[in-house]
Amino acid sequence: MEVRVILVEPKNEENIGAVARVTKNFGFSNLYLVNPTAIGKKAFLVASHAYDLLNAAPIVDSVDEAIENSALVAGTTSQPGVSVNRHMRMPFFPPHELKKKIEGKSGILSLLFGREDQGLLNEELMQCDFVVCVPTSPGYPVMNLSHAVAVVLYELRDVGGDFGEITLANVADKARLFTHVRTFLDEIEYREHKREKTMLMLRRILGRAELTQREVRTLHGILSKAERKMEGGAEEPCEDG
Amino acid sequence: MEVRVILVEPKNEENIGAVARVTKNFGFSNLYLVNPTAIGKKAFLVASHAYDLLNAAPIVDSVDEAIENSALVAGTTSQPGVSVNRHMRMPFFPPHELKKKIEGKSGILSLLFGREDQGLLNEELMQCDFVVCVPTSPGYPVMNLSHAVAVVLYELRDVGGDFGEITLANVADKARLFTHVRTFLDEIEYREHKREKTMLMLRRILGRAELTQREVRTLHGILSKAERKMEGGAEEPCEDG
Repeated sequence: MEVRVILVEPKNEENIGAVARVTKNFGFSNLYLVNPTAIGKKAFLVASHAYDLLNAAPIVDSVDEAIENSALVAGTTSQPGVSVNRHMRMPFFPPHELKKKIEGKSGILSLLFGREDQGLLNEELMQCDFVVCVPTSPGYPVMNLSHAVAVVLYELRDVGGDFGEITLANVADKARLFTHVRTFLDEIEYREHKREKTMLMLRRILGRAELTQREVRTLHGILSKAERKMEGGAEEPCEDG
Repeated sequence: MEVRVILVEPKNEENIGAVARVTKNFGFSNLYLVNPTAIGKKAFLVASHAYDLLNAAPIVDSVDEAIENSALVAGTTSQPGVSVNRHMRMPFFPPHELKKKIEGKSGILSLLFGREDQGLLNEELMQCDFVVCVPTSPGYPVMNLSHAVAVVLYELRDVGGDFGEITLANVADKARLFTHVRTFLDEIEYREHKREKTMLMLRRILGRAELTQREVRTLHGILSKAERKMEGGAEEPCEDG
């Protein structure tokens, strides 16, 4: 897979430079910046020989733009215990598990790293197929941004290879599927207060499953069939009666 | 083993602070500094909540003093190809091999990290029991000092973290779920000739997702709700009519 490192609203330009450097150290070259702080001399000083990579990094306005065309989106967090995901009992993958999950896949893996102070927001984490957590000490779990990137990319260093035979569904394919699922929950009158939690759970399940395009089509097919049955089921007995 | 992180003549105080932070992040607390640059505000700012560790770090004059009482000494280098060790026929271990080597051992493991510009000198590397090399890209192999420390300590962190609390659904739970799914496909009159293939695909998707017990219950719930809707949907219009 092709790895895209995405920094979401980084506030410290030295961190941005340090991330550029370590990205190049591990043989990656794809860095995106979402609403970063101003990038000046300090960032380039820290980036050192990775100035080219920093220079080429697209600056975008939103996470949506940054993850465009991705096959998989992984968010990082340092505090599994305090996130929305605890309620969802979402498994947090350590970085070496992420590596196993993407081996043999092709497409773009977007890796989201959050703000230095707040990390990724819940709505950003919800856009992720899985969440990666570097195992740290409970005594001081919060890593420096570039250290977190270093550890994750260290684990992923060998994945650049061309294993790719399976075409994973991309972000847009999955967005359409989730819209369909949401409509379906409405149609079956799934309990309102549980709907959001369940949507998130389904996103997580299907995210972890790393759906192919073909599988996404089949899932649409099952939902459509059930929908027609619900409509049709409403008519048939009347015709009989 | 007890890990002692030793920085040899670090020239940049922010790097020293960053190393203190990541040392604490991975649950270690033993930092030695050999002839460091002056440590001031900047170092403590970067160390953040690891100021205590930085404060307590012994400052010594020589590598000999720093490695005193060690059971094993490992040096780090980013450029195996150009170092004296090639001639010494010293094997270079990647960080995860180092971990294997120390498992089941006791005593102090001293980890030497060299200067930002020159790394460890040949005479220092010769004092090491082994040399550790973080595998990096030939395009830009030289890591920032604190990143190298981050990766090595990440590998040496105590495994057996908090990831094992999630109760995955067992074989029987999943068998019941698949039975329910099959019934559902029957109910929605999913095309006969596609049913087996689709069942297999769903098994694969849900298998890959490593479902938890809770998630299995939610999926049952969604199916049941849709089933009731299909039945209910058949009655309501008749009642109206």
